[in-house]
Amino acid sequence: MPHFAERMKTMEKSARIIRNLFGAMGDPGLISFSGGAPAKEALPIDIVREIAEDVLRSEKRGVEALQYGSVQGLPDLREVVVRELLSPKGIDAKAENILITSGGLEGINLLCQLFIDPGDVILVESPTFVHCVEIFEMFQAKCISVAMDENGMIPEDLEEKIRRYDPKVVYVIPTFHNPTGRTLSLERRKKIAEMGSRYDVVILEDDPYRDIRYSGEDLKPIKAFDETGNTVLANSFSKIFSPGSRLGYVLASDPVIEKLLDAKSATNSHTSMLPQVICAEFFKRGHYPAHHRMICDLYRTRRDVMLKSIDLFFPAGTKRTFPDGGLFTWVELPGSIDTTELLADATSDPDVKVAYVAGEGFFIEGGGMGKNCMRLSFGAVPPEKIRIGAERLGKFLRFRV
Amino acid sequence: MPHFAERMKTMEKSARIIRNLFGAMGDPGLISFSGGAPAKEALPIDIVREIAEDVLRSEKRGVEALQYGSVQGLPDLREVVVRELLSPKGIDAKAENILITSGGLEGINLLCQLFIDPGDVILVESPTFVHCVEIFEMFQAKCISVAMDENGMIPEDLEEKIRRYDPKVVYVIPTFHNPTGRTLSLERRKKIAEMGSRYDVVILEDDPYRDIRYSGEDLKPIKAFDETGNTVLANSFSKIFSPGSRLGYVLASDPVIEKLLDAKSATNSHTSMLPQVICAEFFKRGHYPAHHRMICDLYRTRRDVMLKSIDLFFPAGTKRTFPDGGLFTWVELPGSIDTTELLADATSDPDVKVAYVAGEGFFIEGGGMGKNCMRLSFGAVPPEKIRIGAERLGKFLRFRV
Repeated sequence: MPHFAERMKTMEKSARIIRNLFGAMGDPGLISFSGGAPAKEALPIDIVREIAEDVLRSEKRGVEALQYGSVQGLPDLREVVVRELLSPKGIDAKAENILITSGGLEGINLLCQLFIDPGDVILVESPTFVHCVEIFEMFQAKCISVAMDENGMIPEDLEEKIRRYDPKVVYVIPTFHNPTGRTLSLERRKKIAEMGSRYDVVILEDDPYRDIRYSGEDLKPIKAFDETGNTVLANSFSKIFSPGSRLGYVLASDPVIEKLLDAKSATNSHTSMLPQVICAEFFKRGHYPAHHRMICDLYRTRRDVMLKSIDLFFPAGTKRTFPDGGLFTWVELPGSIDTTELLADATSDPDVKVAYVAGEGFFIEGGGMGKNCMRLSFGAVPPEKIRIGAERLGKFLRFRV
Repeated sequence: MPHFAERMKTMEKSARIIRNLFGAMGDPGLISFSGGAPAKEALPIDIVREIAEDVLRSEKRGVEALQYGSVQGLPDLREVVVRELLSPKGIDAKAENILITSGGLEGINLLCQLFIDPGDVILVESPTFVHCVEIFEMFQAKCISVAMDENGMIPEDLEEKIRRYDPKVVYVIPTFHNPTGRTLSLERRKKIAEMGSRYDVVILEDDPYRDIRYSGEDLKPIKAFDETGNTVLANSFSKIFSPGSRLGYVLASDPVIEKLLDAKSATNSHTSMLPQVICAEFFKRGHYPAHHRMICDLYRTRRDVMLKSIDLFFPAGTKRTFPDGGLFTWVELPGSIDTTELLADATSDPDVKVAYVAGEGFFIEGGGMGKNCMRLSFGAVPPEKIRIGAERLGKFLRFRV
């Protein structure tokens, strides 16, 4: 065969990390804190069935669900985004500025199509979401990391890196950050939006966990403070509706949306219609508020059990974050423990059989960063299993410190 | 905003052509022969409703339909592709060599991710499908056209162009070609597969119309004659199941599939699950054979009315193709008629109100090629309207010759 394109080489490392992340998932005896999937109890299966039955009874709606649709996405669903997901967060948007994507990640991919030439710099948080780094590497971008603390990306370090590297894009996960669960403070949100405008950089705000907040005070998105269109919001329906539906959206200014339509058209024409029709109806029929309360209660319980179990069973000196929402906590273990090295034992030892994601893979800078860290996802594991899993993992780690 | 990436500039022309193609679609008085959509009568709405209801009644299937799925696609659907769509065409494939994509076009896009660096050459038919040219331009490929006749791409011209331009990819629509409706002969299929191997070029076989053959003899795909893995087949469920579902598949060798998984993961993680589950069940429950007969009967009737009406009403000296399947016929008008120039009148004149696609846009070489041609799609128009539309358009053209 002819040789592969350059971009396929640059993405090899991150692609391998992602494949390893999901390696041990098949074993039914395993308690897995590794995946980022929502709880199966959080999937509105019965409501989806009811809506599907209903819309497919009408010829008009049936044709809408199965025939070609618009590149930009179903008008009804774009209206839902504006009215039910953006307006309550203080963002005053028009449906014309929304593009429906095949999941939140596709929004990130399309924005790279628009802005990234090989060699362009993208600033990312340290640590950051490895799946997006895979996308950035496919576009042959150079990723540079910006320091974080408990309040998210540090604006002073960001400003220094903007000046030094002249990036095209700053990639931020502001709320219940993946992998750390941390949230960017209000003051920093304002500062970052403002820096996007001042330095003419795209602030790519990836905010899929925002809507599952179950404690603390709601914060406006970075996009709410953007006065120049430099902030572009990419979001997902995966955590509030269904990940398998692959539905997401991008909110951007007119000239960016216009180019996004070209890129979307050349990627896959438009997003699958039946999931769009069903998801729009889910909101229009008023199912979201009760569903939202149910999933927030469910994840709050799971988080509380997870944090309490870590505090009880993990080695003395362990630090962990306190997420006010989302699906993850980030654990920093004492001493010179190496979570990458221990993973095979943790998943296979019959007394443990617990999976986590080793911290190292989330740091693009390498050099041993995050070696003593792990991401624990509590979203998809029932509370009683969270306790058992954390106890087993804690004991296992206590012997390794 | 920062400037857009180079790729967004190269695709501007084709993106504009595509937007114009679908310009006049909103007018309900218009008879449109322009779109490439299947008939609404060919959408299995009732079957989809029945299946959706059924699978969403089981918790296990419901979770499968709404939770994250595999990058490669639902195993059931990959098995269906192998057993029901490839094996009957003489292709002996394994489900491991199938990737499910979000529509046929996404397969083309992903293969460009794999193989195309800026400046690489892609050989295409003259004329060719403009939507794919948009994709090729987004990847900054250089498209060079290869001559066609009634039997499809001419192997002698292809060989000469391969030698002269050293292309990475040869893009072919072998069956009921878009826009001409022509079919590549068996002998040429063998020759093209063989040239892919001999010159180590990717033969990208895009074959979405193949399964709606309603006259003539079935031909094996180019892929059936491929002995080295140089031919990659990209196909779609749009014409045999539902275009809005955005389902397609790629059949490729092990090393190509492995890289495709990386590209798919970095594009949108995986294809939407509910449409995959429903489509797999559609085949597994045995609905396809009867549905297939129904749609072939429907399109045969429409083709026959279209061809008869062209012969009756179009100006003397008009030539048109005789498609044995698919949705299009290609019309070459006599004299110096300019179909691009006439389109606005044809769609707006109250005595005509008929839309077609002007031929010019399908020729990448420009220079007035196809100026006197048009693509007429009969798929989505009921027979009585085809007759009326062709009569009106024919009269209108007769005054312009």
